[in-house]
Amino acid sequence: MSSEFGKLLRISVFGQSHGRAIGVIMDGLPAGEKIDLAALDAFLARRKPGTSPLSTSRREADAPVFLSGLENGVTCGAPLCAVIENADQHSGDYRELADKPRPSHADYTAFIKWGGMADMRGGGHFSGRLTAPLCIAGGIAKQILSRRGIFVGAHLHAVGTEEDAPFPLHPTPALFDAVAAKAFPVLDDCAGERMQSLILSARKDGDSVGGIVECAAIGLPAGLGDPMFEGVENRLALALFGIPAVKGVEFGLGFGSARLRGSENNDPFAVENGKIVTTGNRCGGILGGITTGMPVTVRVGLKPTPSISRPQATVSLSRGDAAELIVQGRHDPCIAHRAVPVVEAVTAAVVLDLLLEGNHGTF
Amino acid sequence: MSSEFGKLLRISVFGQSHGRAIGVIMDGLPAGEKIDLAALDAFLARRKPGTSPLSTSRREADAPVFLSGLENGVTCGAPLCAVIENADQHSGDYRELADKPRPSHADYTAFIKWGGMADMRGGGHFSGRLTAPLCIAGGIAKQILSRRGIFVGAHLHAVGTEEDAPFPLHPTPALFDAVAAKAFPVLDDCAGERMQSLILSARKDGDSVGGIVECAAIGLPAGLGDPMFEGVENRLALALFGIPAVKGVEFGLGFGSARLRGSENNDPFAVENGKIVTTGNRCGGILGGITTGMPVTVRVGLKPTPSISRPQATVSLSRGDAAELIVQGRHDPCIAHRAVPVVEAVTAAVVLDLLLEGNHGTF
Amino acid sequence: MSSEFGKLLRISVFGQSHGRAIGVIMDGLPAGEKIDLAALDAFLARRKPGTSPLSTSRREADAPVFLSGLENGVTCGAPLCAVIENADQHSGDYRELADKPRPSHADYTAFIKWGGMADMRGGGHFSGRLTAPLCIAGGIAKQILSRRGIFVGAHLHAVGTEEDAPFPLHPTPALFDAVAAKAFPVLDDCAGERMQSLILSARKDGDSVGGIVECAAIGLPAGLGDPMFEGVENRLALALFGIPAVKGVEFGLGFGSARLRGSENNDPFAVENGKIVTTGNRCGGILGGITTGMPVTVRVGLKPTPSISRPQATVSLSRGDAAELIVQGRHDPCIAHRAVPVVEAVTAAVVLDLLLEGNHGTF
Amino acid sequence: MSSEFGKLLRISVFGQSHGRAIGVIMDGLPAGEKIDLAALDAFLARRKPGTSPLSTSRREADAPVFLSGLENGVTCGAPLCAVIENADQHSGDYRELADKPRPSHADYTAFIKWGGMADMRGGGHFSGRLTAPLCIAGGIAKQILSRRGIFVGAHLHAVGTEEDAPFPLHPTPALFDAVAAKAFPVLDDCAGERMQSLILSARKDGDSVGGIVECAAIGLPAGLGDPMFEGVENRLALALFGIPAVKGVEFGLGFGSARLRGSENNDPFAVENGKIVTTGNRCGGILGGITTGMPVTVRVGLKPTPSISRPQATVSLSRGDAAELIVQGRHDPCIAHRAVPVVEAVTAAVVLDLLLEGNHGTF
Repeated sequence: MSSEFGKLLRISVFGQSHGRAIGVIMDGLPAGEKIDLAALDAFLARRKPGTSPLSTSRREADAPVFLSGLENGVTCGAPLCAVIENADQHSGDYRELADKPRPSHADYTAFIKWGGMADMRGGGHFSGRLTAPLCIAGGIAKQILSRRGIFVGAHLHAVGTEEDAPFPLHPTPALFDAVAAKAFPVLDDCAGERMQSLILSARKDGDSVGGIVECAAIGLPAGLGDPMFEGVENRLALALFGIPAVKGVEFGLGFGSARLRGSENNDPFAVENGKIVTTGNRCGGILGGITTGMPVTVRVGLKPTPSISRPQATVSLSRGDAAELIVQGRHDPCIAHRAVPVVEAVTAAVVLDLLLEGNHGTF
Repeated sequence: MSSEFGKLLRISVFGQSHGRAIGVIMDGLPAGEKIDLAALDAFLARRKPGTSPLSTSRREADAPVFLSGLENGVTCGAPLCAVIENADQHSGDYRELADKPRPSHADYTAFIKWGGMADMRGGGHFSGRLTAPLCIAGGIAKQILSRRGIFVGAHLHAVGTEEDAPFPLHPTPALFDAVAAKAFPVLDDCAGERMQSLILSARKDGDSVGGIVECAAIGLPAGLGDPMFEGVENRLALALFGIPAVKGVEFGLGFGSARLRGSENNDPFAVENGKIVTTGNRCGGILGGITTGMPVTVRVGLKPTPSISRPQATVSLSRGDAAELIVQGRHDPCIAHRAVPVVEAVTAAVVLDLLLEGNHGTF
Repeated sequence: MSSEFGKLLRISVFGQSHGRAIGVIMDGLPAGEKIDLAALDAFLARRKPGTSPLSTSRREADAPVFLSGLENGVTCGAPLCAVIENADQHSGDYRELADKPRPSHADYTAFIKWGGMADMRGGGHFSGRLTAPLCIAGGIAKQILSRRGIFVGAHLHAVGTEEDAPFPLHPTPALFDAVAAKAFPVLDDCAGERMQSLILSARKDGDSVGGIVECAAIGLPAGLGDPMFEGVENRLALALFGIPAVKGVEFGLGFGSARLRGSENNDPFAVENGKIVTTGNRCGGILGGITTGMPVTVRVGLKPTPSISRPQATVSLSRGDAAELIVQGRHDPCIAHRAVPVVEAVTAAVVLDLLLEGNHGTF
Repeated sequence: MSSEFGKLLRISVFGQSHGRAIGVIMDGLPAGEKIDLAALDAFLARRKPGTSPLSTSRREADAPVFLSGLENGVTCGAPLCAVIENADQHSGDYRELADKPRPSHADYTAFIKWGGMADMRGGGHFSGRLTAPLCIAGGIAKQILSRRGIFVGAHLHAVGTEEDAPFPLHPTPALFDAVAAKAFPVLDDCAGERMQSLILSARKDGDSVGGIVECAAIGLPAGLGDPMFEGVENRLALALFGIPAVKGVEFGLGFGSARLRGSENNDPFAVENGKIVTTGNRCGGILGGITTGMPVTVRVGLKPTPSISRPQATVSLSRGDAAELIVQGRHDPCIAHRAVPVVEAVTAAVVLDLLLEGNHGTF
């Protein structure tokens, strides 16, 4: 029961990196939704590796095959299952890892948990590859949301110590589209150049680097979400921590708010065009777990890819003593830029799930 | 279904700040656990306000009455329900707020969600007062865990821009006890002095200030938690975002990892006394959602109390135009120090829930 | 996590028969619903014992105190908690039972499960007394439903081998009210006389007798519920088996359908007043887990009260050998008639939960 | 979120009868479990149609392909996904049904729920065909349970008015195997002959007939399950009502208990070979929702197949008036005998889920 999230819309991910296939079930998807498969492919292409030295050279076709739930391109109400066959696997590269767990990877914890039976070739079920089915689900959710005037977009907020410009107070669908169309998904291309230099420099050193993704959802009505443990923050955080390498989640200013005074952090209310708004959005569009109607903003911190080609200290599980590890194979020097559509996908899935409840507080 | 969390151990919180009573149900608590009520009271006392100018002057007795589940001080297997009667309510102070929502408080979102029917006196169900029943649940969980060699402790990591020393690589139960015994829960008392000055200064200005709490759980076996959406991070984040004012959650280095290279961030494995450990713990004791056996560490960012006595811009809900608000009544100039036991409580409850599963990956 | 059910409306029951109090939380209740407390008391009175030799002589005031969620008689959105203080306990009566489990009661299984720590005085958490808080929840749900033209009613279908007339194809609110107003809740009073004779005869013999309750929900739209495991049948069955003594649940003709041919069991469709209906309702208003728009009908089989005053063979848990038991104290010779409002209550709670989803299949 | 059940072991079913494939995910399966694929195939063969005039002539290969979770025939801890490609589809047969819903089938309710977008060819997601992936899940669960001395078996208790002998008080694995090996799964072959005659007679008349399946799980420890809404009965009922055509579920004597007196229905305790047992098992091995250690017994009532070839009254959805329907195509004159392994499968999945909790009441 580990690889699922959602309440009325339940998303279950399955597969191992080098197994036969990976895939996703969406159970609870509304019927009658037309899915634009070309647009979905374009969305999936955004997380694909293999197009530049910024990513692993592993090629992934990522062409989803729909086994159920979609008839003639329209959702039919039954659970939708989409699978991607695995190909271009170099499992040989990973043989040594079965005995020598990679530092800061799930190799060791999976070994302990599953009594040595885990299939950890290529990271197994913990692989970043599992974000492809997440993107199928989220790409579908994005299409359904956009028809209702709700848009989800993200950009690469930081790579290492280099930062992009922040989202404006009111990001627009056009801005989201513009970022999505870029080869490197930033707002400020100069910052993007510096980030790419950092990634290439890490790659040259056989190293990797972490990053931060900022995501926004616009067009949400006020009043979504519930207090305490079913708030928008709780539900988004639960889902976003499911993306491999995520180590932190914050809303609005997040940890930045902790450094401020109330008079600096509070978002004053105002009336604009007859509508109640806040003149700032340091709360990220969420108060008491419930949407204010302003953009929901969230930042996700991703650690550097643990697989690096520099020698690292580890242990031999079979011998029980110290060992050195040099990870072979193809690896991403940074996964934060590829995580941008993944964060959008997960956010869109959670937002759609929230909306499906239909009655929000009153009846 | 908003005010509950947990899987095998389900914790439900109820009550409004100025309602008749607040309370908690713990459903799934193991039978036969003796609860030391004096120790529980001592734990609850740690979050109580009213003892210094650092907190609100509201007095809360917070004496739990056990309606079920506890017979002769021992859990009996049936759901445990504990309630705290409300007293010392000054609801009059809040009358103006019914029309003028406090910036960055849940006043407005609750108004929208519940069609104007929300009971927001004193913050209603969104009040920090609801953390008292959370502490009952967590205090009980802490006692049960400690008998199994698992300890949860926390300290105030930051107030505004002032920071405490971090937890050492291996915090001990004695360290947790030492911090818990202090009037101001920090590791470094000099840093604590600076933090308290910040709080008092904010108070003098009719303002408030945010902070960060760092929490650790030690003694956990490796192998707890599940991949993707049922990992230790997902479950802790879901619960911790239920604490009022929390806007960010990070594990280990968290967002700090995003700024590092893999070679800096990875935690090498080593063998110590025949046991596999990591020589650093930047991952916060969790890889792939699963415990490594090292301390689980989490940081929680809390925004400054939104209720400040300085004039603020807001709107009149009845008139639909701009208004000025000066919040009357008693308020905490900072809630981060009072949140320390609350973060411990929620963490302990999640850890106990994880442990109750019994079979972790193999059978 | 055992004593809760529901998805968007989550109902948690707590308490032991002879503990300090019993109660219920309703989390997810819509805000702005006025609760008629006199009508609720009248509903609760229907399950009360103590008014005739047909029931136990234990007196229960069953006056709910609302700790949260209800302000000035109107739901405010926050979780509603209602408690009933226990009184008129004769725990002394049950002392022998701690060592000698009553045949077909939960004494033995609770002893095993909870390592001898269960509080089984008066049946503890397994007592029929726990149906009082269920009726609070269900009584509130019934009021909310009735405002939307949805009515839930039940009658005593059978006691032992004596059967009442069945509900007509289209039961009306007036019929429900008429049955509810009777001292003995049957459609056919002659059948009711025979049933009461059976109960009194069992009582005279120090024995007890089982029965069947039939319940109907009318006014439901077609299209509620989901296929497979989230259908109306699944959700009702899950909840109804939570009523003590229930050993069977069937919808429409239920097991009777198993004895028929398709041509006899199928419900033909027809158009009446421009609306699609079925001319029979052997399916109980549910096809494929989804409502047809016809009345939802369910029958619940309850075993005879296990507590009888005739000598029974049991074991001594402390000595580990055979023992004889003569149950002392006050007991219901039949609980089926008192279960009528309880079945209504649980059905109403499930129906309200279903309705709250708002979007049913399309969006 | 409709087509899933389970708590720690979560089983999700997907697919439509005439879609590309059907399948199942098992999430939470313990690692290191060897699956005997030949034994699994033999189990799946038990529900296959096409071998006699007792069933539909549709041929189903039902050969599962494992996409994930199973490496070298051993579970690896990651979610297991198995799919069956659909073949031998005669969708043309069902064209008329799109406009004329079959009486007592889900055609109409799915049409309403999913706004006319449901894929109901061959019954769509509501088809009995979806029980094939359920049997994959349950067949795997049965293998895992049998290694721990827990066995699940079933027989055809009734077809129409013809009844098989009941299970003995203590069914054995050998008895389960003997029934499973029969072409017609009954205890008493003479009764089986009469049942088959009933089925063939219904078939000859273009009609169908219902039936009852009785299932038992043996070897379960006492103390499994929880009170009220998480009891063994609640969890089994929730899952069993997910099998198409099930309209009733009862445990032990079930509705039969309702007709008895307590002195007849109660199961006396006794000590046998130092172990506490009951000398009868009218409670079906469950008291207060918790296992007694005796066999768990459940009966499931299935309605007659709604698809019959006799003319039936229905409506035209497009024209909104009365219509006659003669269902073409291949149909089962009875599905109760094919449901026998399905009931076993679902029961085994629920029992395994219960066992995986590990700590049952104490810790």
